[in-house]
Amino acid sequence: MTVSNSKVSAALAERLASAAPSGVHTALIESVLPTLIDCIADIAKTLRQAHHVSQAGSANAFGDDQLNVDVLAENSIREAIARCPAVATASSEEDPVERPAQKGDVPSGGAVPEEHYTVAFDPLDGSSIIAPNWTVGTIIGIWQGPTALNQPPASKLVASVLGVYGPRTTAFIALRVPGCEPACLEIGIGENGARDCEIVREEVKLAKPPFKTRYFAPANLRVAGEDEKYMKLISHFIENNYSLRYCGGLVPDVVHALVKGHGVYVNPVMDAHKAKLRRLYELYPIALIMECAGGKALDPAYGKRILDKNLEDLNETAGLICGTSEDVHYAKQALLGGPHA
Amino acid sequence: MTVSNSKVSAALAERLASAAPSGVHTALIESVLPTLIDCIADIAKTLRQAHHVSQAGSANAFGDDQLNVDVLAENSIREAIARCPAVATASSEEDPVERPAQKGDVPSGGAVPEEHYTVAFDPLDGSSIIAPNWTVGTIIGIWQGPTALNQPPASKLVASVLGVYGPRTTAFIALRVPGCEPACLEIGIGENGARDCEIVREEVKLAKPPFKTRYFAPANLRVAGEDEKYMKLISHFIENNYSLRYCGGLVPDVVHALVKGHGVYVNPVMDAHKAKLRRLYELYPIALIMECAGGKALDPAYGKRILDKNLEDLNETAGLICGTSEDVHYAKQALLGGPHA
Repeated sequence: MTVSNSKVSAALAERLASAAPSGVHTALIESVLPTLIDCIADIAKTLRQAHHVSQAGSANAFGDDQLNVDVLAENSIREAIARCPAVATASSEEDPVERPAQKGDVPSGGAVPEEHYTVAFDPLDGSSIIAPNWTVGTIIGIWQGPTALNQPPASKLVASVLGVYGPRTTAFIALRVPGCEPACLEIGIGENGARDCEIVREEVKLAKPPFKTRYFAPANLRVAGEDEKYMKLISHFIENNYSLRYCGGLVPDVVHALVKGHGVYVNPVMDAHKAKLRRLYELYPIALIMECAGGKALDPAYGKRILDKNLEDLNETAGLICGTSEDVHYAKQALLGGPHA
Repeated sequence: MTVSNSKVSAALAERLASAAPSGVHTALIESVLPTLIDCIADIAKTLRQAHHVSQAGSANAFGDDQLNVDVLAENSIREAIARCPAVATASSEEDPVERPAQKGDVPSGGAVPEEHYTVAFDPLDGSSIIAPNWTVGTIIGIWQGPTALNQPPASKLVASVLGVYGPRTTAFIALRVPGCEPACLEIGIGENGARDCEIVREEVKLAKPPFKTRYFAPANLRVAGEDEKYMKLISHFIENNYSLRYCGGLVPDVVHALVKGHGVYVNPVMDAHKAKLRRLYELYPIALIMECAGGKALDPAYGKRILDKNLEDLNETAGLICGTSEDVHYAKQALLGGPHA
């Protein structure tokens, strides 16, 4: 099937159309996703020129110091979705309040289109590794309907996008809607965004055993200094010849597993060392990508799917175990053990 | 002092001139370094478009699989230094044989200029993390004279350049020549290379204690599975709340410490798990950068400075402990202990 769409390269339009039933998610595929891909190209350009990465002087709602590039990325996405009528509501890690995405009144006639979405995003994830010029990312979740609050994530979060800013600009797109197989693809983004992108991997899929090389990414390592179970899990990875790859940016750490076909990311929680990952702006979109790529994403506090728990507050945080199913299961058993196992 | 030089931005020309006595290293500062900075801009452009990173189908002299971007980076540097008469000799990780850098016969008159250098480089370090779009780098050492073989590195390696390809393109330049203070600076590189670069840090200097945050990067982790001393060292870092940052690319791992002001990179050696770092193409240039930034770089096999041992064979490899002096010392004691301590 060929889709004619001037906003997006033919190959991408066709691939996205194949992942959604005809006519139901037209605005998502022809407007929302291309707009967000254009934002990723814009943010990449901004970062490329931002040699003097400095503090913007304001603190976001979570108390982090904001970098000037964070502010630029936030503004790029806000302005773009304001031109996209199917986005009804938006909130972000920098401004975690659900608000109408359109500027001023709702568009012509005052009616929200029947097909409409809520966009929840982290404009620039990995602030701590921007100064050393390491790869960073953007995380975006697209929810069906006017809010992400108190909705079942497993069915209402219909798409996620991870923008990856490294030597190249790439993105991972996951799409899971009723009537089609879940899809996860990787695209390479050129100077002109969605018009100018190519498909790098039609189907991003984690490998099945036996694995050639196994990778682990242990986050929140302070926990291991006080928690014997986490320390034992790390020893297990070392003794079993897993390769360490941990850059401390959620997007590059997860993307490493997606590209290599194997990986386990572990970010456990302890009373004194709470994981700071935002459910809405980080965990849900990452979990959808992982599941669409054949992997798993669990909440280490109770061992269930990240996507099984509804959001009650936009500011909720949690830990994460995600990646290759076999290793996610092992890590869960190792950390929870006992009655949870 | 203002230096007029059309090949390089005024700020950079001035900074480089301040690190070398007038008239002695003119070609190095006005031709060799600007040429190499231009190469880094070129390689960055190549990488940005290389969405389909694939195997080039040939193996380099160390038996690694070559990626097509490796070949492009190698060619970029070879062609550029061939236009730079002060570079007499060159060799690289991809082609580790010292050969005349100039094409055909030596330039006009058949004489090598009195001021001449040997360039030894790793065109693209971090092959394993190119596919996931993580930051990678170029490593270049510039030796005074016609060869790097059997020369004292501490005095003959006069400059190093690390190119860093991430969301931005940056480079670290170290310069250490008699008569001037050792210099280490960071530049941001624009589309037009040396003409278009800005100084990000005039003086890259590792911090002195007390440290705000401490970082560790444990390489060659398989050794820890079999070596109690390395495992104990890793436990020490974890228990003492060091933050883990290890992406597995030597350039980004070292640059992290340089930018954050603290870090210790440990790549130990065991009979069964030899460190694969090349002395000439990786270790010497990194060691010069570290020392010029106030840090240390030791050979873990015997605990002495990397720059204290002459090169006898272009293909020599070794391990590395480098970074913040206090932590390098601790790691050396932990790994060598006993009579070496």
